[in-house]
Amino acid sequence: MRVENIMRTTVRDLAELVGGELLGDGSCEITGVSSIEEAMPGDLVFAQDPRYLRQAAESAASAIVAQQGARNTGKPLILVEEPRYAFARILEMFGPTSKVEPGIHPTAHTGEIFRSGENVSIQYGCYIGDNVTLGDRVHIHPLSHIADNVTIGSDVVIHPFVCIQQGAVIGDRVTIHSSSVIGSDGFGFVMVDGVQRKIPQIGNVVIGDDVEIGANVTIDRARTGSTEIGAGTKIDNLVHVAHNVKIGKNCLIVALTGIAGSVTIGDGVVLAGQSGVKDHVRIGNNVIAAARAGVIGDLEDGARVSGFPARSHCEQMRVSAAMLRLPDIMKLVAKLEKRIAVLEGRSAEDGEPGD
Amino acid sequence: MRVENIMRTTVRDLAELVGGELLGDGSCEITGVSSIEEAMPGDLVFAQDPRYLRQAAESAASAIVAQQGARNTGKPLILVEEPRYAFARILEMFGPTSKVEPGIHPTAHTGEIFRSGENVSIQYGCYIGDNVTLGDRVHIHPLSHIADNVTIGSDVVIHPFVCIQQGAVIGDRVTIHSSSVIGSDGFGFVMVDGVQRKIPQIGNVVIGDDVEIGANVTIDRARTGSTEIGAGTKIDNLVHVAHNVKIGKNCLIVALTGIAGSVTIGDGVVLAGQSGVKDHVRIGNNVIAAARAGVIGDLEDGARVSGFPARSHCEQMRVSAAMLRLPDIMKLVAKLEKRIAVLEGRSAEDGEPGD
Amino acid sequence: MRVENIMRTTVRDLAELVGGELLGDGSCEITGVSSIEEAMPGDLVFAQDPRYLRQAAESAASAIVAQQGARNTGKPLILVEEPRYAFARILEMFGPTSKVEPGIHPTAHTGEIFRSGENVSIQYGCYIGDNVTLGDRVHIHPLSHIADNVTIGSDVVIHPFVCIQQGAVIGDRVTIHSSSVIGSDGFGFVMVDGVQRKIPQIGNVVIGDDVEIGANVTIDRARTGSTEIGAGTKIDNLVHVAHNVKIGKNCLIVALTGIAGSVTIGDGVVLAGQSGVKDHVRIGNNVIAAARAGVIGDLEDGARVSGFPARSHCEQMRVSAAMLRLPDIMKLVAKLEKRIAVLEGRSAEDGEPGD
Repeated sequence: MRVENIMRTTVRDLAELVGGELLGDGSCEITGVSSIEEAMPGDLVFAQDPRYLRQAAESAASAIVAQQGARNTGKPLILVEEPRYAFARILEMFGPTSKVEPGIHPTAHTGEIFRSGENVSIQYGCYIGDNVTLGDRVHIHPLSHIADNVTIGSDVVIHPFVCIQQGAVIGDRVTIHSSSVIGSDGFGFVMVDGVQRKIPQIGNVVIGDDVEIGANVTIDRARTGSTEIGAGTKIDNLVHVAHNVKIGKNCLIVALTGIAGSVTIGDGVVLAGQSGVKDHVRIGNNVIAAARAGVIGDLEDGARVSGFPARSHCEQMRVSAAMLRLPDIMKLVAKLEKRIAVLEGRSAEDGEPGD
Repeated sequence: MRVENIMRTTVRDLAELVGGELLGDGSCEITGVSSIEEAMPGDLVFAQDPRYLRQAAESAASAIVAQQGARNTGKPLILVEEPRYAFARILEMFGPTSKVEPGIHPTAHTGEIFRSGENVSIQYGCYIGDNVTLGDRVHIHPLSHIADNVTIGSDVVIHPFVCIQQGAVIGDRVTIHSSSVIGSDGFGFVMVDGVQRKIPQIGNVVIGDDVEIGANVTIDRARTGSTEIGAGTKIDNLVHVAHNVKIGKNCLIVALTGIAGSVTIGDGVVLAGQSGVKDHVRIGNNVIAAARAGVIGDLEDGARVSGFPARSHCEQMRVSAAMLRLPDIMKLVAKLEKRIAVLEGRSAEDGEPGD
Repeated sequence: MRVENIMRTTVRDLAELVGGELLGDGSCEITGVSSIEEAMPGDLVFAQDPRYLRQAAESAASAIVAQQGARNTGKPLILVEEPRYAFARILEMFGPTSKVEPGIHPTAHTGEIFRSGENVSIQYGCYIGDNVTLGDRVHIHPLSHIADNVTIGSDVVIHPFVCIQQGAVIGDRVTIHSSSVIGSDGFGFVMVDGVQRKIPQIGNVVIGDDVEIGANVTIDRARTGSTEIGAGTKIDNLVHVAHNVKIGKNCLIVALTGIAGSVTIGDGVVLAGQSGVKDHVRIGNNVIAAARAGVIGDLEDGARVSGFPARSHCEQMRVSAAMLRLPDIMKLVAKLEKRIAVLEGRSAEDGEPGD
């Protein structure tokens, strides 16, 4: 289904590929593509404007895709009109090789009322329930489970041991990694007569286009209605998304983060590793919560928070720095008390005793 | 195996169902049942006494099951003698529809000495080891794994990709969600001559009646003896329970919590999200540990703790509040020092210099 | 493949087994082996020297393997020349019983170019991709998934629902518990024109000899090159290891820990439960990070750290203790301010007003 991809090439070949002008050593070998922050030797990165060009030049990257007219930086450059588009084309070239033969493996189970688009691949040992709809070029790896009444778009990749539960709706170009569970029951109980009774969880999960979900992630179905993951959002491994959560578009949710029930998250939000969000909290657009942040109250658009309870990153830094100085402050306060006592002693000699 | 359940009804129909008196608009549509705290429009909640009735009236719920004689609250009421029992009956009505055909799928593997009760359903691609015993109406979803010497009670639901390891004993009415592992080896090693040697983990896991275990949970077998989960306890997704832990009855263990080896937990305990308990700690009955609490010492019955290290919630709140004021305190102390220096200067003029 | 192992024996029998001298009650029953810290009644522990002998004597263990010439401690002793070697032999005796019949189950799928050593067992419902190489005595439990181009050494145990992705290389005597994912894609994206574009993850995972990996662990493949787990390292349940991480030898990584991308960890490192390491951090040899430590900067060999941000354990303890006293300090500062004001008042009476 895909062309054989490259894993090792030169700056010259890549410049040709995107129709760019080569500046510098075209024989420089490129083995990967990267963001500037994560660049390693052998990587190609892109710099949309002069500010990023400087960062790219200082990074460990071996070559840079930059705008026509960019000045020489010492690293080989590929000069193009729109660096981001050229880079996007190169990104695709570096994708992993994958040979997928369309068809349903004879061991796989498909249920009643099974609708499927073109070039679908359902591999060894998969279970597909009743009333399931798949788009084109869906690739379901061996030993996956799709329950009844699930709808999946086109160009979706489902890795082994993924469990998609009843009624889930999944968009186009979604990838779900191994052992993730989409649509497990929400954790809802009500104490009735000293016993925790289960509150029925009869909603579903709706996942937008271009979402990627890591390994061992759990996304609970809604109690009623839908738990929603917005288009373009990327979720890392071992993340927990509780029932009735709504996550917006193009968010990044990093590993081991927990999002409690009925939380609403805007677009472009980053929740860094091991962070957490309290139930019913509303997070605005473009919020960044640092690693380990524990968000317990609503956050406005663009907020930068850290700590637990999460507060403005600047304030948190100030408190954190102050905490480190705390043992010294305590010694200072003890000394000041003595100096006051001395002053009070003198003052008492001058007149009546202090309070 | 179950009756077709409802997903949309009216207050009038529900009042009839439980033989209750209707107060208010009977045509009000009900789409779910909930606790008061989590109520959304369309929900029915229950209020056992006047205090809860006020909370229920102020919640987003659409209607309330209350005690006979309850005053009008503006929301439709269903008045009954025992609200909790009526509510429990309604809860069951709202459970998800599930059609289960008894029988063992021809692809499933069952081992030697397989004992099973009535109306058991073992679905596509399940593996059942040797010497396994199942009660009545056990429903094992596709692609699950039950190892040798496992005993499972009646009315148990095992979701896809659940792995139940050797020797586990599971009570009645237990539900285990996808990709959870019951009886993986405990994490026990001993350094012998510079190398970590594995301590054999030869115990098992024992799970009481009415337990629910979320998705991607890990419960380790005991080193010797049993790791125990008490009856009625509910465990959320991505929780880790280490070897030889004993959890009491009717506890709630929320997502991403870790409980280290040989911890003992009483009945009715709540460990909120991302909390942790140090190995060998003993936690009494009805303890509540807030989100992110890190419990490193024993806790008495009824303790309310938060923070890391976890301490009394009140004390933690005081310390937390003080921390926020810390930068200001530091400025104040610096000012006080100057004022003291000024006083000392004057005092020195009066007599001999300060210390 | 293994001898039937023991689960209950006496000190006398174990002394005979290792050719040791018995001191004390030989009829004492032994049901397990343990480290001194985790010892329970019925356990045998070992004490390499007199210091550990005292700790062992004070533990709950029932008997001790000690060095010839060790003094009587009240507990039965097995005296040998090298306690650690004798203990290692006994450890093996207590391993769990396991009957494994070599062969490939008829339901299992093996791909093209499948190479395998002697006495390999591939059980029910396993999927093995193309170009896979297995050593001797590899035991793949039911319903596991090995992707294309994977190489596995000898005496490896793969539990159910383990997913080993393309190109992984796994050493000898490795054990991987259920639902762990070896080689999921790293979490790498680059914002191109307002959209998170995936950075291809085309590296692999390399796991050394004698590694044990718990349940529901995720180890991401490298972007390019390899994510590496060193020989003898043990990883607990629900741990996340991101792309391009390098972990050294004989480390212990405890449950719910997250290690971000491109982190380098030395040998003999312990990361306790729920700890975390920031991307690109370098951790030296023999570092110990306490539970919940959040390591955000490089650490030298032998560092002992705790807290978030992680700092020297001693300093963290001092800051932690100071924090608890903070509310009192604040009251004290308020009092001191009043006392200063009183002094200033008097001083003002003496002369000109204070600043």
